[in-house]
Amino acid sequence: MTTLEEQPTLSRREDRSLPARLALSVAATDSGVQMRTDEFDGWLKERADAYSFEVSQVPFQQLKGWFFNTDTGNLVHQSGKFFSVEGLRVRSKDDQFPVWHQPIMNQPEVGILGILVKEFDGVLHCLMQAKMEPGNPGLLQLSPTVQATKSNYSQVHKGSPVRYLDYFAGKPGTRVIVDVLQSECGAWFYRKRNRNMFVEYEGDIEVDDDFCWLTIGQVNELVKRDNVVNMPARSVLSCLPQPQQDHTAQPDEFHASLAASRDPDKGALHTNSEVLSWFTVERSTYDLDISRVPLYDVPNWHRTDKEIAREDGRFFRVIGVDVQAGSREVTGWSQPLFQPHGVGIAAFVVRRFAGVLHVLVQARMEGGFIDVIELGPTVQCVPWNYQHVKAPLFLDTVLQADKSTIRYEAVHAEEGGRFYEAETRYLVVEVDGEVAAEPPPGYAWLTVGQMTDLLRHGQYVNSQARTLIACVNAIG
Amino acid sequence: MTTLEEQPTLSRREDRSLPARLALSVAATDSGVQMRTDEFDGWLKERADAYSFEVSQVPFQQLKGWFFNTDTGNLVHQSGKFFSVEGLRVRSKDDQFPVWHQPIMNQPEVGILGILVKEFDGVLHCLMQAKMEPGNPGLLQLSPTVQATKSNYSQVHKGSPVRYLDYFAGKPGTRVIVDVLQSECGAWFYRKRNRNMFVEYEGDIEVDDDFCWLTIGQVNELVKRDNVVNMPARSVLSCLPQPQQDHTAQPDEFHASLAASRDPDKGALHTNSEVLSWFTVERSTYDLDISRVPLYDVPNWHRTDKEIAREDGRFFRVIGVDVQAGSREVTGWSQPLFQPHGVGIAAFVVRRFAGVLHVLVQARMEGGFIDVIELGPTVQCVPWNYQHVKAPLFLDTVLQADKSTIRYEAVHAEEGGRFYEAETRYLVVEVDGEVAAEPPPGYAWLTVGQMTDLLRHGQYVNSQARTLIACVNAIG
Repeated sequence: MTTLEEQPTLSRREDRSLPARLALSVAATDSGVQMRTDEFDGWLKERADAYSFEVSQVPFQQLKGWFFNTDTGNLVHQSGKFFSVEGLRVRSKDDQFPVWHQPIMNQPEVGILGILVKEFDGVLHCLMQAKMEPGNPGLLQLSPTVQATKSNYSQVHKGSPVRYLDYFAGKPGTRVIVDVLQSECGAWFYRKRNRNMFVEYEGDIEVDDDFCWLTIGQVNELVKRDNVVNMPARSVLSCLPQPQQDHTAQPDEFHASLAASRDPDKGALHTNSEVLSWFTVERSTYDLDISRVPLYDVPNWHRTDKEIAREDGRFFRVIGVDVQAGSREVTGWSQPLFQPHGVGIAAFVVRRFAGVLHVLVQARMEGGFIDVIELGPTVQCVPWNYQHVKAPLFLDTVLQADKSTIRYEAVHAEEGGRFYEAETRYLVVEVDGEVAAEPPPGYAWLTVGQMTDLLRHGQYVNSQARTLIACVNAIG
Repeated sequence: MTTLEEQPTLSRREDRSLPARLALSVAATDSGVQMRTDEFDGWLKERADAYSFEVSQVPFQQLKGWFFNTDTGNLVHQSGKFFSVEGLRVRSKDDQFPVWHQPIMNQPEVGILGILVKEFDGVLHCLMQAKMEPGNPGLLQLSPTVQATKSNYSQVHKGSPVRYLDYFAGKPGTRVIVDVLQSECGAWFYRKRNRNMFVEYEGDIEVDDDFCWLTIGQVNELVKRDNVVNMPARSVLSCLPQPQQDHTAQPDEFHASLAASRDPDKGALHTNSEVLSWFTVERSTYDLDISRVPLYDVPNWHRTDKEIAREDGRFFRVIGVDVQAGSREVTGWSQPLFQPHGVGIAAFVVRRFAGVLHVLVQARMEGGFIDVIELGPTVQCVPWNYQHVKAPLFLDTVLQADKSTIRYEAVHAEEGGRFYEAETRYLVVEVDGEVAAEPPPGYAWLTVGQMTDLLRHGQYVNSQARTLIACVNAIG
């Protein structure tokens, strides 16, 4: 918080100039102060060429500093920091899966995912980073200004300090726009969450080699491409307040319905109170018993010298990689990663009601959530895992969608620092009467504005749905 | 949610008529459709006389259906339902208390605390209940329409169905105004929370003997008295949206500053974004390791045939009571209760900045919270426990406050269904320059409106601070 004098002046509780300022930056899709959007690929390639990166899978015993605890079978780091791979047991009243066990990553510390913003010629720009993560397809992706766990910034691995971190730690002259704790991938992480931050600074900022200034509109353009914008960046982007939009200036009815969906003065199928009540009921209904257990006690998962995996190959496997790099805080390291089996699907089914676009969300339970459920995409699964069991609702609607109804489609990877080429196809599919206004239990139609309101607070929207909100915002 | 037709009409996202309707009900302090406020004591006494209640402490072995598990020492019910008394171990980085153990109540089910409202002559009235709880001073207090755990309403104890429950379970014609999961007493309960609900119904409602219609203004008058309005009722009241207020029509500058504190268009020391960021930092900072442990493994606590207590008598003791009653779902039962040692203090220190009243809240850690911290009162403690250790900050400010600066003072009990005569003196104390605009770490000045905004969501405001918000709203 800002330092206060004894006779302090008061501030407006809400920053009313922000939506218009965001709109200016969103509208700047072609160029920014540092580069045109069509120059970005060249810039990223230059950054990739500046270093030599090499990632190779190695047996667990070659992971420097990592070992299996002999009592528990957990895979841990000798410092006791970073993360560990442990077991999780979930007992629920779900008929299909009343109890399951799985390996899970445990990293009981809050990370910072922060984007630094600054106005150039009256237009907000984001300081983005070309960051290498061993699990990223293509290795180098566009990341927030700062992406650091406490182990990073307290320098457990004795590397160099995290650049720009001070802007996210109360440096004088900074102004916080967004700062909210959001969960990360509850299916694979035990109660992990990160501060998702936007911080504005008016003074001079030196731009290091791996960093560049892009408008929000430029970043949105990159969100439309496969495997360019990394998961932390997509997550932070989704937490931005809505830009001010002119409904009458949209190119077509679909875009007009999207603008109306953001407008708090337009109607919605459900009032905000009804949305919160529905969420409360969903959260109250689940009766779960979740415990961390020793990795030894996870049935059906087996360890070889190179992987921990299920006999039937479903879900994911745990592997070890050795990393050689020149652009991170350290030059080389090795670590475990989770590698899912197959490309996932995460999709919003959307529908216009009375000219206002609504998003069909699912109240979704994941074993690693701090608080039972969060709102997820309409569909979120890896289809390969459902070859022999009943497929999730709406999967067919999404997979068989006519091309003309697909409003967004791109492949993005989950966090490359923990997950190896964990790709998901993100889709926004528009439907009409074939999906009813009254959806099945556990689903609800919300406006984009209602989702954005919930994103001011933590534990409402899961990481895949946050990526989809970033995708929806990239549409227009 | 309301049932939807295939060509649905949209609703306003926010109910803009509610603040004015609430204001009408708040203003009706002297009388309502059923009784004048000065008739309430007579009504409550009549309800008390209609039944015979008797509560007596008994040895644990006389608690019907309750026994100590021989492996763990936990005190449990033979049905496996209701609650159990177990052990808790908290490890923190707090210098004064790096680790502590204590008994804790574990009740892993969500309860409903619901007030049914209806307009009479254009004024909203609340259907309140005279409810007996064995731990209440005076036994009978004013409670919400419905106050039920899942064990209650699924009739584990084979009593009669909970009256009016259907209004809180989607009965056609009901309209949800508030429905939010709030924590309950994190110092004594492990992750307990309840749905705090207001539901409106326009149709006819039959009023049973133990129930009465009161305006919000009438209930506020009763909140000013000692031991009349029970904890669940105070909690639900605190979650109401702010009534519309005319700043210019206030009796004095203090009340005008309170009205300004509720107004989102007035300024505040900190923007809403700064408040959320401060809270995020506080929640990220705590590094806790909390585990349930067998009650046998809680050091310094000892069990006799009549109590579980510390040798030094500090904090609280666990006792058993036998209850004879005629106005509940069953006629008699026995159960354990927690009995704290001494009367607690819970106080808001408030201060006017530029004509806007601010409340000094503390980011407070309690072992039973689901999510590390919530905002608590400026001071929350039982002073007797601090005879030989450093007293909490601001305790002296509150205890030594000049009478003219005490804006509110009354004694209320915590939940009488679990806590035996657990009385707390609730205070609102106004200060000026003696408490700085920049408070110590872990404290922040918020407006009443900012607190109310947070109360739309769970896990921001603890139960004692919620009672204090109800007290502040009773002031005017």
